[in-house]
Amino acid sequence: MKQQLSIVKIGGNIIENKNELNTFLKLFASLKGPKILVHGGGKRATNLGEKLGVKTTMIKGRRVTTADSLELAMMVYAGLINKNIVALLQANNCNALGLSGADGNSILATKRAIGKVDFGYVGDITLVNDMSILKLLTAGFTPVFCALSHDGNGQILNTNADTIASELAIGMSKNFETILYYCFEKKGVLKKIEDDDSVIEHIDIDLYNDLLFANTISEGMLPKMENCFYALKNNVSKVCIGNLYMIEEKEQLFTTITL
Amino acid sequence: MKQQLSIVKIGGNIIENKNELNTFLKLFASLKGPKILVHGGGKRATNLGEKLGVKTTMIKGRRVTTADSLELAMMVYAGLINKNIVALLQANNCNALGLSGADGNSILATKRAIGKVDFGYVGDITLVNDMSILKLLTAGFTPVFCALSHDGNGQILNTNADTIASELAIGMSKNFETILYYCFEKKGVLKKIEDDDSVIEHIDIDLYNDLLFANTISEGMLPKMENCFYALKNNVSKVCIGNLYMIEEKEQLFTTITL
Repeated sequence: MKQQLSIVKIGGNIIENKNELNTFLKLFASLKGPKILVHGGGKRATNLGEKLGVKTTMIKGRRVTTADSLELAMMVYAGLINKNIVALLQANNCNALGLSGADGNSILATKRAIGKVDFGYVGDITLVNDMSILKLLTAGFTPVFCALSHDGNGQILNTNADTIASELAIGMSKNFETILYYCFEKKGVLKKIEDDDSVIEHIDIDLYNDLLFANTISEGMLPKMENCFYALKNNVSKVCIGNLYMIEEKEQLFTTITL
Repeated sequence: MKQQLSIVKIGGNIIENKNELNTFLKLFASLKGPKILVHGGGKRATNLGEKLGVKTTMIKGRRVTTADSLELAMMVYAGLINKNIVALLQANNCNALGLSGADGNSILATKRAIGKVDFGYVGDITLVNDMSILKLLTAGFTPVFCALSHDGNGQILNTNADTIASELAIGMSKNFETILYYCFEKKGVLKKIEDDDSVIEHIDIDLYNDLLFANTISEGMLPKMENCFYALKNNVSKVCIGNLYMIEEKEQLFTTITL
């Protein structure tokens, strides 16, 4: 039987809140077995962009990564946030090692083809270098990924953190039984969006289709859920969605998703 | 006999010039055997600081690292410059892995004690974690260090890149025969500062003392030379000072320093 590998993704809201981040990192550090952390960017890239006069370009409701906003992402994701998280994990006796997809050639991507919209420096993942990541895990390091990939030709690319997490889980499932945790501000997938305690504890593909049909799943949750089923269909063992206390797996409510 | 390890430090002027950086990284990528790159920050942290209204605080001619300027350093050194270098090395088939001293707990430091001057978030190195760096080298990675250390308690600290390079060379000399290269804009240590070709090809401690006595060594070169002899006295095999073509070791002039 394969060893278990936990891949935990935290969103911007946890990163923005110093106390929540500290609490989360303590829990993450105490998580047994090999593990990988993936973090998003939070609002800091946007805030810094405003200070520097870098405009957020949106086309049809979607963010475009210009050369300037890529530099912002590199500075905030790989510099400020990643190094802060790594230093805090080290203080919790977790031998963290911060990575972009360029480091150790770990995540390769291609710049998204220009179709109706030119999204700029956005990367669609083509390969997770599982051997490179396995070497780091075997050496006792805990990889901490920010939401950047590279094209192998010297160009860093911006890639959605949820996607980085699911592709890492899929890529590492050759070597491990991978469990993917999406930590965000809610306790899980909710039956009623206005009721924080209406957590659906288990979702499989049949229930998901029922929920879709009944229009129960909120719009913000839809791409996350698609990501989850995509991962499960590609050899990831289990996906969990919940708040930062989820990884304790005590009495905390959260949503488990399986096929 | 121990295997040779090259530790190459590049300064801000090479980083600022896109063509020079590309040329250097090609040469570095083709350097045989295990190797480590250390890079400074260039003018970009200062430029970004000006745009953001972060003032450079100087006390008695020395730079103070305030909380704001530490954030700048984290963003520019560990984010922008480090990830750009790593992506470019990957394009040159060098399996680079970018690190601050917090990553893999590789460089521990203590915040400089407040004496006559409070230098702020500046770290004096207390330990190079040679086992951690050895694991990365053994796994086939080429570490690329920016000029940041950490205190083990969650705090990133600013540390001079020349010092990072010499302490890495000293720390790794337990396992390797370490050669330290300081690449900068001149061809080496010059007899006459106004004559770029007046390179002194070999300096030992006796000649150094003569040069000091004769007041030949320029003020900017003095701390670099002190760093070199400190490294040599602590088991580093050889220190070389020259421009970016030095690491080719062809007909290029440069300065070699030994005890």
